[in-house]
Amino acid sequence: MRSLAHPKKGELQLDAVLSALADPIRRQIVGYLAASPGTHACGAFNLPVTKSTSTHHFRVLREAGLIRQDYQGTAILNSLRTEDLEAQFPGLLQAVLQPTNPRHLPIG
Amino acid sequence: MRSLAHPKKGELQLDAVLSALADPIRRQIVGYLAASPGTHACGAFNLPVTKSTSTHHFRVLREAGLIRQDYQGTAILNSLRTEDLEAQFPGLLQAVLQPTNPRHLPIG
Repeated sequence: MRSLAHPKKGELQLDAVLSALADPIRRQIVGYLAASPGTHACGAFNLPVTKSTSTHHFRVLREAGLIRQDYQGTAILNSLRTEDLEAQFPGLLQAVLQPTNPRHLPIG
Repeated sequence: MRSLAHPKKGELQLDAVLSALADPIRRQIVGYLAASPGTHACGAFNLPVTKSTSTHHFRVLREAGLIRQDYQGTAILNSLRTEDLEAQFPGLLQAVLQPTNPRHLPIG
Protein backbone atom coordinates (compact mmCIF):
# COMPACT_ATOMS: atom_id res chain seq x y z
CA MET A 1 0.00 0.00 0.00
CA ARG A 2 1.50 3.29 -1.05
CA SER A 3 1.60 6.02 1.52
CA LEU A 4 2.54 9.69 1.38
CA ALA A 5 4.94 11.53 3.70
CA HIS A 6 3.49 13.64 6.49
CA PRO A 7 5.23 15.70 9.18
CA LYS A 8 4.70 14.08 12.57
CA LYS A 9 2.29 15.38 15.16
CA GLY A 10 4.12 17.87 17.35
CA GLU A 11 6.66 18.58 14.63
CA LEU A 12 4.66 20.91 12.40
CA GLN A 13 6.56 24.08 11.46
CA LEU A 14 4.76 27.40 11.86
CA ASP A 15 6.62 28.86 8.86
CA ALA A 16 5.26 26.11 6.60
CA VAL A 17 1.76 26.22 8.10
CA LEU A 18 1.42 30.00 7.64
CA SER A 19 2.95 29.88 4.20
CA ALA A 20 0.47 27.17 3.16
CA LEU A 21 -2.43 29.20 4.54
CA ALA A 22 -1.30 32.36 2.73
CA ASP A 23 -2.95 31.18 -0.48
CA PRO A 24 -6.72 31.61 -1.02
CA ILE A 25 -7.18 28.30 -2.87
CA ARG A 26 -5.45 26.43 -0.06
CA ARG A 27 -7.57 28.26 2.53
CA GLN A 28 -10.62 27.25 0.47
CA ILE A 29 -9.57 23.58 0.70
CA VAL A 30 -8.88 23.88 4.45
CA GLY A 31 -12.17 25.72 4.98
CA TYR A 32 -14.08 23.02 3.13
CA LEU A 33 -12.46 20.28 5.23
CA ALA A 34 -13.10 22.24 8.44
CA ALA A 35 -16.78 22.64 7.55
CA SER A 36 -17.17 19.04 6.36
CA PRO A 37 -15.25 16.76 8.75
CA GLY A 38 -14.20 13.39 7.40
CA THR A 39 -12.30 12.39 4.30
CA HIS A 40 -12.89 13.84 0.86
CA ALA A 41 -11.43 12.93 -2.52
CA CYS A 42 -9.57 15.73 -4.32
CA GLY A 43 -12.24 15.74 -7.02
CA ALA A 44 -14.92 16.76 -4.51
CA PHE A 45 -13.53 20.28 -4.09
CA ASN A 46 -14.47 21.78 -7.46
CA LEU A 47 -11.59 24.26 -7.36
CA PRO A 48 -11.24 26.97 -10.03
CA VAL A 49 -7.77 25.72 -11.06
CA THR A 50 -6.32 22.99 -13.27
CA LYS A 51 -5.89 19.47 -11.92
CA SER A 52 -2.11 19.83 -11.70
CA THR A 53 -2.38 23.13 -9.82
CA SER A 54 -4.91 21.54 -7.51
CA THR A 55 -2.56 18.59 -6.89
CA HIS A 56 0.21 21.07 -6.06
CA HIS A 57 -1.98 22.86 -3.49
CA PHE A 58 -2.96 19.59 -1.80
CA ARG A 59 0.71 18.58 -1.63
CA VAL A 60 1.71 21.91 -0.03
CA LEU A 61 -1.03 21.45 2.58
CA ARG A 62 0.09 17.86 3.31
CA GLU A 63 3.77 18.75 3.56
CA ALA A 64 2.96 21.61 5.94
CA GLY A 65 0.97 19.21 8.11
CA LEU A 66 -2.42 20.82 7.58
CA ILE A 67 -4.02 17.79 5.92
CA ARG A 68 -3.63 14.04 5.79
CA GLN A 69 -3.69 12.36 2.38
CA ASP A 70 -4.31 8.62 2.28
CA TYR A 71 -4.63 6.32 -0.69
CA GLN A 72 -7.82 4.37 -1.07
CA GLY A 73 -7.21 2.29 -4.17
CA THR A 74 -6.12 4.85 -6.74
CA ALA A 75 -7.97 7.74 -5.12
CA ILE A 76 -6.46 10.01 -2.48
CA LEU A 77 -8.65 10.90 0.46
CA ASN A 78 -8.00 14.17 2.27
CA SER A 79 -8.76 15.14 5.83
CA LEU A 80 -7.89 18.08 8.05
CA ARG A 81 -5.38 17.46 10.88
CA THR A 82 -7.52 19.50 13.23
CA GLU A 83 -6.31 17.95 16.49
CA ASP A 84 -2.62 18.09 15.58
CA LEU A 85 -2.98 21.72 14.53
CA GLU A 86 -4.97 22.72 17.58
CA ALA A 87 -2.48 21.01 19.90
CA GLN A 88 0.46 22.87 18.44
CA PHE A 89 -1.08 26.17 17.32
CA PRO A 90 -4.24 26.67 19.37
CA GLY A 91 -6.72 29.09 17.82
CA LEU A 92 -4.81 29.45 14.56
CA LEU A 93 -7.25 27.61 12.28
CA GLN A 94 -10.20 29.44 13.76
CA ALA A 95 -8.48 32.82 13.36
CA VAL A 96 -7.61 32.13 9.72
CA LEU A 97 -10.98 30.60 8.78
CA GLN A 98 -13.25 33.18 10.30
CA PRO A 99 -16.57 34.16 8.73
CA THR A 100 -15.27 37.60 7.72
CA ASN A 101 -13.15 35.76 5.18
CA PRO A 102 -15.59 34.48 2.53
CA ARG A 103 -12.92 32.25 0.99
CA HIS A 104 -13.30 29.76 3.82
CA LEU A 105 -16.85 28.82 2.99
CA PRO A 106 -17.62 25.37 1.64
CA ILE A 107 -17.60 25.32 -2.11
CA GLY A 108 -20.20 22.74 -3.01
CA MET B 1 7.62 65.38 5.75
CA ARG B 2 8.19 62.09 4.00
CA SER B 3 5.72 59.34 4.68
CA LEU B 4 5.57 55.68 3.75
CA ALA B 5 2.63 53.85 2.14
CA HIS B 6 0.42 51.71 4.35
CA PRO B 7 -2.66 49.66 3.50
CA LYS B 8 -5.74 51.29 5.03
CA LYS B 9 -7.47 49.98 8.09
CA GLY B 10 -10.13 47.47 7.00
CA GLU B 11 -8.29 46.78 3.75
CA LEU B 12 -5.57 44.44 4.97
CA GLN B 13 -5.24 41.28 2.88
CA LEU B 14 -5.07 37.95 4.69
CA ASP B 15 -2.77 36.50 2.01
CA ALA B 16 -0.22 39.25 2.63
CA VAL B 17 -0.59 39.13 6.43
CA LEU B 18 -0.04 35.34 6.59
CA SER B 19 2.78 35.49 4.09
CA ALA B 20 4.50 38.19 6.15
CA LEU B 21 4.08 36.15 9.33
CA ALA B 22 5.47 32.99 7.69
CA ASP B 23 9.04 34.19 8.30
CA PRO B 24 10.69 33.73 11.72
CA ILE B 25 12.59 37.04 11.63
CA ARG B 26 9.38 38.91 10.83
CA ARG B 27 7.56 37.08 13.63
CA GLN B 28 10.45 38.06 15.91
CA ILE B 29 9.88 41.74 15.00
CA VAL B 30 6.12 41.45 15.48
CA GLY B 31 6.60 39.59 18.76
CA TYR B 32 8.94 42.28 20.05
CA LEU B 33 6.45 45.02 19.15
CA ALA B 34 3.58 43.05 20.71
CA ALA B 35 5.53 42.63 23.94
CA SER B 36 6.78 46.24 23.98
CA PRO B 37 3.93 48.52 22.88
CA GLY B 38 4.88 51.89 21.50
CA THR B 39 7.26 52.92 18.74
CA HIS B 40 10.72 51.47 18.26
CA ALA B 41 13.51 52.40 15.85
CA CYS B 42 14.66 49.63 13.53
CA GLY B 43 18.06 49.62 15.24
CA ALA B 44 16.47 48.56 18.55
CA PHE B 45 15.68 45.06 17.35
CA ASN B 46 19.17 43.55 17.21
CA LEU B 47 18.19 41.10 14.49
CA PRO B 48 20.62 38.38 13.31
CA VAL B 49 20.55 39.65 9.72
CA THR B 50 22.22 42.39 7.68
CA LYS B 51 20.79 45.90 7.69
CA SER B 52 19.44 45.56 4.16
CA THR B 53 17.74 42.26 4.97
CA SER B 54 16.29 43.83 8.08
CA THR B 55 15.00 46.78 6.04
CA HIS B 56 13.37 44.31 3.65
CA HIS B 57 11.60 42.49 6.49
CA PHE B 58 10.26 45.76 7.97
CA ARG B 59 8.99 46.80 4.53
CA VAL B 60 7.18 43.47 4.03
CA LEU B 61 5.51 43.90 7.43
CA ARG B 62 4.48 47.48 6.61
CA GLU B 63 3.14 46.62 3.16
CA ALA B 64 1.10 43.75 4.65
CA GLY B 65 -0.37 46.15 7.21
CA LEU B 66 1.18 44.52 10.28
CA ILE B 67 3.24 47.53 11.32
CA ARG B 68 3.25 51.29 10.92
CA GLN B 69 6.51 52.98 9.95
CA ASP B 70 6.76 56.72 10.53
CA TYR B 71 9.69 59.02 9.95
CA GLN B 72 11.01 60.98 12.90
CA GLY B 73 13.76 63.07 11.37
CA THR B 74 15.91 60.52 9.55
CA ALA B 75 14.92 57.61 11.79
CA ILE B 76 11.97 55.34 11.15
CA LEU B 77 9.81 54.44 14.11
CA ASN B 78 7.89 51.15 14.02
CA SER B 79 4.74 50.17 15.83
CA LEU B 80 2.37 47.22 15.64
CA ARG B 81 -1.10 47.85 14.11
CA THR B 82 -2.68 45.78 16.86
CA GLU B 83 -6.17 47.34 16.68
CA ASP B 84 -6.39 47.21 12.89
CA LEU B 85 -5.29 43.58 12.89
CA GLU B 86 -7.60 42.57 15.72
CA ALA B 87 -10.56 44.28 14.04
CA GLN B 88 -10.05 42.44 10.79
CA PHE B 89 -8.50 39.13 11.91
CA PRO B 90 -9.50 38.62 15.53
CA GLY B 91 -7.29 36.19 17.42
CA LEU B 92 -4.75 35.83 14.63
CA LEU B 93 -1.85 37.68 16.27
CA GLN B 94 -2.37 35.85 19.52
CA ALA B 95 -2.48 32.48 17.74
CA VAL B 96 0.71 33.18 15.83
CA LEU B 97 2.62 34.71 18.77
CA GLN B 98 1.86 32.12 21.38
CA PRO B 99 4.34 31.13 24.06
CA THR B 100 4.88 27.69 22.51
CA ASN B 101 6.64 29.49 19.70
CA PRO B 102 9.94 30.77 21.16
CA ARG B 103 10.56 32.99 18.14
CA HIS B 104 8.02 35.51 19.38
CA LEU B 105 9.89 36.39 22.55
CA PRO B 106 11.38 39.86 22.92
CA ILE B 107 14.94 39.99 21.71
CA GLY B 108 16.61 42.56 23.92
